[in-house]
Amino acid sequence: MYVDLGNALGTRPGLDRDTLDRLDERVADAHGTIAAGREAEEHGYAALNLPETTDADAIRSAVSRFENPAAVLTVGIGGSALGAATVANALDSEVDAYFLDNVDPEWVTRKLDALPLDRTVVNVVSRSGTTAETLSNFLVVRDAMESAGVDWTDRTFVTTGEEGNLRELANKHDLPALDVPDGVPGRFSALSTVGLACAAIQGHDLDALLQGGADAMDSLSGSLYDSPGYAYGAVSYALARRGAGVNAMMPYAESLETFAEWFAQLWAESLGKDGVGQTPARALGATDQHSQLQLYRAGPNDKLVTLVRPREYEDRAIPETDLDGLSYLGGKSLGELLDAEFEATEASLKAAAVPNVRIELERVDERNLGELLYAMEAATVLYGELDNVSTFTQPAVEWGKKAARGLLGGGDFEEADAVQDKETLVVE
Amino acid sequence: MYVDLGNALGTRPGLDRDTLDRLDERVADAHGTIAAGREAEEHGYAALNLPETTDADAIRSAVSRFENPAAVLTVGIGGSALGAATVANALDSEVDAYFLDNVDPEWVTRKLDALPLDRTVVNVVSRSGTTAETLSNFLVVRDAMESAGVDWTDRTFVTTGEEGNLRELANKHDLPALDVPDGVPGRFSALSTVGLACAAIQGHDLDALLQGGADAMDSLSGSLYDSPGYAYGAVSYALARRGAGVNAMMPYAESLETFAEWFAQLWAESLGKDGVGQTPARALGATDQHSQLQLYRAGPNDKLVTLVRPREYEDRAIPETDLDGLSYLGGKSLGELLDAEFEATEASLKAAAVPNVRIELERVDERNLGELLYAMEAATVLYGELDNVSTFTQPAVEWGKKAARGLLGGGDFEEADAVQDKETLVVE
Repeated sequence: MYVDLGNALGTRPGLDRDTLDRLDERVADAHGTIAAGREAEEHGYAALNLPETTDADAIRSAVSRFENPAAVLTVGIGGSALGAATVANALDSEVDAYFLDNVDPEWVTRKLDALPLDRTVVNVVSRSGTTAETLSNFLVVRDAMESAGVDWTDRTFVTTGEEGNLRELANKHDLPALDVPDGVPGRFSALSTVGLACAAIQGHDLDALLQGGADAMDSLSGSLYDSPGYAYGAVSYALARRGAGVNAMMPYAESLETFAEWFAQLWAESLGKDGVGQTPARALGATDQHSQLQLYRAGPNDKLVTLVRPREYEDRAIPETDLDGLSYLGGKSLGELLDAEFEATEASLKAAAVPNVRIELERVDERNLGELLYAMEAATVLYGELDNVSTFTQPAVEWGKKAARGLLGGGDFEEADAVQDKETLVVE
Repeated sequence: MYVDLGNALGTRPGLDRDTLDRLDERVADAHGTIAAGREAEEHGYAALNLPETTDADAIRSAVSRFENPAAVLTVGIGGSALGAATVANALDSEVDAYFLDNVDPEWVTRKLDALPLDRTVVNVVSRSGTTAETLSNFLVVRDAMESAGVDWTDRTFVTTGEEGNLRELANKHDLPALDVPDGVPGRFSALSTVGLACAAIQGHDLDALLQGGADAMDSLSGSLYDSPGYAYGAVSYALARRGAGVNAMMPYAESLETFAEWFAQLWAESLGKDGVGQTPARALGATDQHSQLQLYRAGPNDKLVTLVRPREYEDRAIPETDLDGLSYLGGKSLGELLDAEFEATEASLKAAAVPNVRIELERVDERNLGELLYAMEAATVLYGELDNVSTFTQPAVEWGKKAARGLLGGGDFEEADAVQDKETLVVE
């Protein structure tokens, strides 16, 4: 992986090289903390050991009973879906991947109607076995399979903790069951059973995904200049502290659109606490040049723009044309156009003093994707250390969970009472 | 449409009712400017007349020659695609809608391979007829049709300005041609030929879409308390001025996911200039409760969260279950769960003093969608007036266009030279 920080220097908000060198001393300390946490397999830090601790054979073995599926349906939400979705949407496969990561009833119905249920493998993912959205969707899916005359116990497996509903269900019905690894928060679980079971069914190379992660892991050292992941995390932190409160993650590849969503969860949920945190904005090049670029260039000086692209891809020629003023495109390719726009956008941001970072992968394949995911996790952990936040927790979401549960009659919660007391000022 | 500002008051950054009343005096002035601009059909303001000026019959007539298509492919980018995509993704149709709004070569190839080219209608949308991405994609599509033995002149129409490449092409090959309306920037063109041709082919009710827009148009008056669109624009502006630099647009309906993208363009490109503007963040309920909510609640006090939902939808029951701790879900529905989460999230933001606005539609249909789109456009125009920006221009994107063109050999531009001079600081 290739990270170029050149356009993060000399901007507003901006850094200079001396600042980065001073920051590098703190990176050394933070790396010591991270290394010690990994060594002790502490909560969260353990995620950075996944390239070594994930057992690809166990994953392949668990799903081996499902022969020639047409589709794999992951029922999960947040970190229980986004890692798998990132891999699925980045890489081609003859097995279609679907995700039920929302409880919109019309949408759930449409998804189920589109699925060949008798040729679909269902993966239910919830560490606790009590996640309301996931378990509700599972009940709906199971019911739909029964209605369609499909034996759900033949086509379902679970990815869950050592105890709980899904573990009991697996034991009772002899379903394959994968263990959610200890000490790994959902948003850091892409390179574990949670993210890789779907990939295994799709026929992707789990070893290469893990090898990519291992390569990024091996680069971690006491200096940001040695590790692309640390470099990205340190610069993002420094820019955020200087006013870049928004990080626009803008891949120039449709295959990486879900990666930007995955990143947004990782970044927001890990770093957004105690009144700090950098807000991720999901963007897509070149499309969002015609949507967000005006704001990024000319709006408030509060942006870091992260530009990501693969260096190699299957290109497609633009036919020659006699259309007026377009002869310069004929004989070029869509890839050349996209690359020119990438570099033009990068330079245009720099010309407007908007900090930006370039990240390049060799190509979008298993190894490079594994490296990218790991590097971004390392970036997040380093940023959290530098900003002194509790990277691996998400306490602020509990309030709403209790309120929703109370509203549905699942117990007495004062949070649910607060919902009832809402004040209104209506215009209609 | 129903807008509830109750949770925008008494928050950090926050407003009180007196502030809103004082702001309402400025809304009266701004409305005067807007009304005068509409009356004179000035650039930009003319967009707010579209419910009256769009000729639905002309659109239906132009596409009437295409009988029983399986799919409609819109080739356009930014405002030439997002309005049509918003309608297409909100409403069910038996005619599939596809969009080529990016030049990623692998993705373009995959889209074309998936399309039944002999049963697809192609709509090429570019006011100037020179948009590099759109015209390149059109050349690729035309070539693919020829290779597949499909007469592209039988299956193509254009939506363009009075002159230029596409107009000439239409004249030469007798293609149906729709006029891009004068004075309507692309991002405000959803309720014109630009947004509605695709909808016509999909069999949607254009009259109802325009009627919804007309209803929102009729609500515009000199007070924010009379118009849902103005209410939303005024409150967003006031909160942005008090520190809410980010506007998280979070529909609780998968069908409105593209609406959030459309809004993001409208908001960013119209208001992001002169160092001001509120950054749109695209989110989706309930999914992003497991991704962005931690940041929204506990991160920096710089967010407005806009929660959107339909009141009516096709619900789906959650089957009864004996799974441990989940009996409270049995007998409920996915819709009840989603609604409980909506209200819980709203209250949880308020409890953390994060301002939020609730927008409700009766249901997601043509009329309500037309009203929503118009109201958001009115909100944008009002916000622009209050913030004294040039709402209808996008000057900051020109630099990059010139640079890209220069890089591709389309002329001498100093911007292209700046690209070559990039400084690097590489970590790999």
